[in-house]
Amino acid sequence: MMYVLFEGIDRAGKSTQIELLKRALPDALFTKEPGGTPLGKRIREIILHTQNPTPLAEVFLFLADRAEHIQKIIRANSNKLIISDRGYISGIAYAHTKTEIPLQKLCWLNSIAMQKTLPHKIVLLTLTTEELQRRLALHPLDNIEKRGIEYLISVQEIMKNLVIHSKIAHLIIDGAKPVKEIHQQIVAFIKDSQ
Amino acid sequence: MMYVLFEGIDRAGKSTQIELLKRALPDALFTKEPGGTPLGKRIREIILHTQNPTPLAEVFLFLADRAEHIQKIIRANSNKLIISDRGYISGIAYAHTKTEIPLQKLCWLNSIAMQKTLPHKIVLLTLTTEELQRRLALHPLDNIEKRGIEYLISVQEIMKNLVIHSKIAHLIIDGAKPVKEIHQQIVAFIKDSQ
Repeated sequence: MMYVLFEGIDRAGKSTQIELLKRALPDALFTKEPGGTPLGKRIREIILHTQNPTPLAEVFLFLADRAEHIQKIIRANSNKLIISDRGYISGIAYAHTKTEIPLQKLCWLNSIAMQKTLPHKIVLLTLTTEELQRRLALHPLDNIEKRGIEYLISVQEIMKNLVIHSKIAHLIIDGAKPVKEIHQQIVAFIKDSQ
Repeated sequence: MMYVLFEGIDRAGKSTQIELLKRALPDALFTKEPGGTPLGKRIREIILHTQNPTPLAEVFLFLADRAEHIQKIIRANSNKLIISDRGYISGIAYAHTKTEIPLQKLCWLNSIAMQKTLPHKIVLLTLTTEELQRRLALHPLDNIEKRGIEYLISVQEIMKNLVIHSKIAHLIIDGAKPVKEIHQQIVAFIKDSQ
């Protein structure tokens, strides 16, 4: 029925919002990338447990995960409302910052992996640099976060540009707004039949 | 110094010839795809142990293995004579027969994974349909072999075309010739400084 892609950098509040959506949309199918399929879980473990995989190899591993996820989850449940935690938007943004492969090439690689199955709607949660700094200070930093705030903000910029230029219906929303307000806007956006 | 790619379908006699080359060229570095790196070994296990991965996901897994192998083995040992058991030639040929992705797209995907590091020479061992039939009858069939003789011969045809049109120095040799004769031709080809 509809494939909604949920995007945002770490700490933007995706998990909180997805938990709320699960209650608001009990019939929806919630999935994620990477790791939304058995193959994807194995790929995810490989990435976490291999010493210094080359960034390029990592890009292809994420594309393998994406190809499997699109085929086995998204296409196989095309009669449902599917909400995916991450997908090609963050895939391209992280791949570009890690490998410097041009965005156009990355879009092309992703279009092969996705076989023309694009989301119908995209929700992107964003944060200002100040808000991200504040949020990171509240948690012990994990590996991705340690790469720094500038890195995350640059990834977010790419995500934003990709979403804006995607020609897909989208909602870009400030993650610093009250949780409940964000939730209501997202539900309205998903339910909007336009 | 030199990267030699060794190609051929199963039963063409690659393993036998590579064993002989190891003795004839004791200073060469022998490697393989897939599975020539720690990441590659893990990818290989994933492919063997996942139930029905989509063929497209498999293509990207092999590309991840190739990217890692090119970077960590081929480029990291560019001062050596490197002989690789399989590489992009069989990669493209098998990917094309499994997914029907056009050869041109597959060449492009591989060029990204290989970052312009092409072999200096290619050896391709070939078999006639009759000889392949004879050889397969001598062994219990494994999964790939069961897909049939026609399949393997069609893969071999693609390999041959890729090699011929590669503009890379190559030796295409009938695997039905006496083992020693094949070996001598391969050594002469590799040592030939042209």
